[in-house]
Amino acid sequence: MRYPARHINPPSVDPTEDPSTEAIEFISAYYKERKLSDVANRIAGVLDEIATTGTYWQTSAELAYGARAAWRQSARCIGRARWSGLQVRDRRAVTTINGIDSELAEHLRVADNGGRIRSVITVFAPDHPQTGPRARIWNDQLIRYCGWQLDDEVLGDPAQQGMTEAALQLGWKPPDVASRFDLLPWVIETATEDPTVVDVPRHLVREVALAHPDHAWFADLGLQWHALPVIANMRLRIGGVNYSCAPFNGHYLADEIGTRNMCDVGRYNQLRTVAAGLGLNTENEASLWREHAALLINQAVLHSFRDAGVRISEPHRESELFMRFCAHEEQAGRPVYGDWSWLNGSVGWAALHAVHHRYYDTRMPNPNFWPRARTPLSEPTLREQNAAALQGG
Amino acid sequence: MRYPARHINPPSVDPTEDPSTEAIEFISAYYKERKLSDVANRIAGVLDEIATTGTYWQTSAELAYGARAAWRQSARCIGRARWSGLQVRDRRAVTTINGIDSELAEHLRVADNGGRIRSVITVFAPDHPQTGPRARIWNDQLIRYCGWQLDDEVLGDPAQQGMTEAALQLGWKPPDVASRFDLLPWVIETATEDPTVVDVPRHLVREVALAHPDHAWFADLGLQWHALPVIANMRLRIGGVNYSCAPFNGHYLADEIGTRNMCDVGRYNQLRTVAAGLGLNTENEASLWREHAALLINQAVLHSFRDAGVRISEPHRESELFMRFCAHEEQAGRPVYGDWSWLNGSVGWAALHAVHHRYYDTRMPNPNFWPRARTPLSEPTLREQNAAALQGG
Repeated sequence: MRYPARHINPPSVDPTEDPSTEAIEFISAYYKERKLSDVANRIAGVLDEIATTGTYWQTSAELAYGARAAWRQSARCIGRARWSGLQVRDRRAVTTINGIDSELAEHLRVADNGGRIRSVITVFAPDHPQTGPRARIWNDQLIRYCGWQLDDEVLGDPAQQGMTEAALQLGWKPPDVASRFDLLPWVIETATEDPTVVDVPRHLVREVALAHPDHAWFADLGLQWHALPVIANMRLRIGGVNYSCAPFNGHYLADEIGTRNMCDVGRYNQLRTVAAGLGLNTENEASLWREHAALLINQAVLHSFRDAGVRISEPHRESELFMRFCAHEEQAGRPVYGDWSWLNGSVGWAALHAVHHRYYDTRMPNPNFWPRARTPLSEPTLREQNAAALQGG
Repeated sequence: MRYPARHINPPSVDPTEDPSTEAIEFISAYYKERKLSDVANRIAGVLDEIATTGTYWQTSAELAYGARAAWRQSARCIGRARWSGLQVRDRRAVTTINGIDSELAEHLRVADNGGRIRSVITVFAPDHPQTGPRARIWNDQLIRYCGWQLDDEVLGDPAQQGMTEAALQLGWKPPDVASRFDLLPWVIETATEDPTVVDVPRHLVREVALAHPDHAWFADLGLQWHALPVIANMRLRIGGVNYSCAPFNGHYLADEIGTRNMCDVGRYNQLRTVAAGLGLNTENEASLWREHAALLINQAVLHSFRDAGVRISEPHRESELFMRFCAHEEQAGRPVYGDWSWLNGSVGWAALHAVHHRYYDTRMPNPNFWPRARTPLSEPTLREQNAAALQGG
């Protein structure tokens, strides 16, 4: 998951902004879609609460509906057909680092489900209308591998080098011997507690070693990946309320691992290694050696995950499913929000997917998930922000 | 080249429309970009001419600039970096079927250039401001293969079945034995002559038999393609003037042949055949057999064209070139018009082309090329339209 910051136009998070309009819109949509009665009464209650407190407390059912709608409207996600099956864990009462740590572990356990990955979101306390986020996870995903800066290269995942250094600065004790696949610890902070490093419960992290069904040498490359992609740095916004701490996961699409994570030059950069294993001519681009090597890695990812009983999607079935989702949305009278570059760029050999040769509504309405521009390494801590906001107010 | 009709929003071709605004815009842009002086004088002349005749005659230099700008602004073309090298053949004086036929043959000769394909456009007479096109070519491209409807399948190119039938209806004498690669004849009409079938000068059509460098059996599939993609059914619009008959060509990008023409289910549909040759398991989509077969065909196309000395682009170099084009356009202060789905959908394994992970200006300004919705099989002939327009006027 990468979001080029310049293309994101998140709604304002000005804390003084009145959430009433968005709240009315959301509550109305919820009551209409679920065919509930007496929406006027609920809206009156919400507006009363906003007038008094500057925000309102959503019911668990509203929260669950909002989280699912946010997934349904995520323009860049190809797996949205599964939106209604999202398991929503309402943990808004949990506000301490200890409590969040335990709930993240529980999230991993519930989502992993013995390899039959379930789509899960854990929603922690909503942002305070004046002082902002009550909790923040620094990691972009709950499971990631360290990037170790060596003299002239990065060992591990270069995309995680900054986060690895941040953990070290915060006092994390790294493993004695660095490897390509060391689990990054979590960094969690709350409005009352400074950023704290917490080790990921290793026994809850399922990993898959990559092997190729037809090429025995592939296993000797020692590649692997983790089973769960849990996004941790996106702000969920529902009906005018921000949930800055609300990690969520679906399951992997093979390309995300096989093409992006393994092939990108700024990631594990394995194209030349695999091409060498295949004995390909890498001098001549017209030999399409890059495509050939990437094909092999994608085959290995699909084979290895399925062999290990870990749920993963392949691009053809995923395309079909997404097209059915589009048809269903249009039947339901809802626009299909979409970002072509994301829906197709990572879906295998896009050229084969003529089904994707369609256009989408490019708006990004709420409920939705909004990316954080960067790891909050050099920003004031939440505790400092909180103190400043209270002083200013 | 496919243009889903519903996404096209061509400017009006209402013949009574005043071209003055677009003319002023165009002449101004031309004078500014070429740093020419006395634009006011030329604009005054153009407006005078429009006031008298309803249109104006562009100078050869204006026409050449306009045609190149139209290419530069073609949102769906990946090869636009070469726009300034477009060879513009001003044949506006040619208005008979005989004359057009000869000029099309000459276009093939000039563009072929012994296999070192040159980008060429031949511009015939502009549309009449009241009565419309003065000439029309029915074919979508000047070189295409027939599609023969057999009992339960199409032999040849299914996309050309309608055009093949039209040629037969117009009296074309087909070859004694139908094959997969019979050249379609041209159908040409003018405002004074009925649609006429003209055989393509076969000696000017370069074709390449497809072989794979590592798989001898591939050549036995008997696949081939033609060297020149000459689009014949798009209307060039420059400064308020329509040129409905203005065939143009660049050279092929390997994917257009290797993925679209050879793999699409509605075209030559060769994926299963090639997968069988490779002995792949086509029961399991997760084996990525489609990608594997498509890779092989693309390799064969690149290898065979280069082996035959015929110019063709491969996706990696083409991506780099296009990114340089974008940078150059932005430096020149011009927006980069682009349609993501076209720029990436047909460019090899798009997932490898992170360079394309950018956004474009999605407008389609003039000068530009505009597609025709369909083959004019069931429409009135130009001669009939012409007579009706004159009667009405």
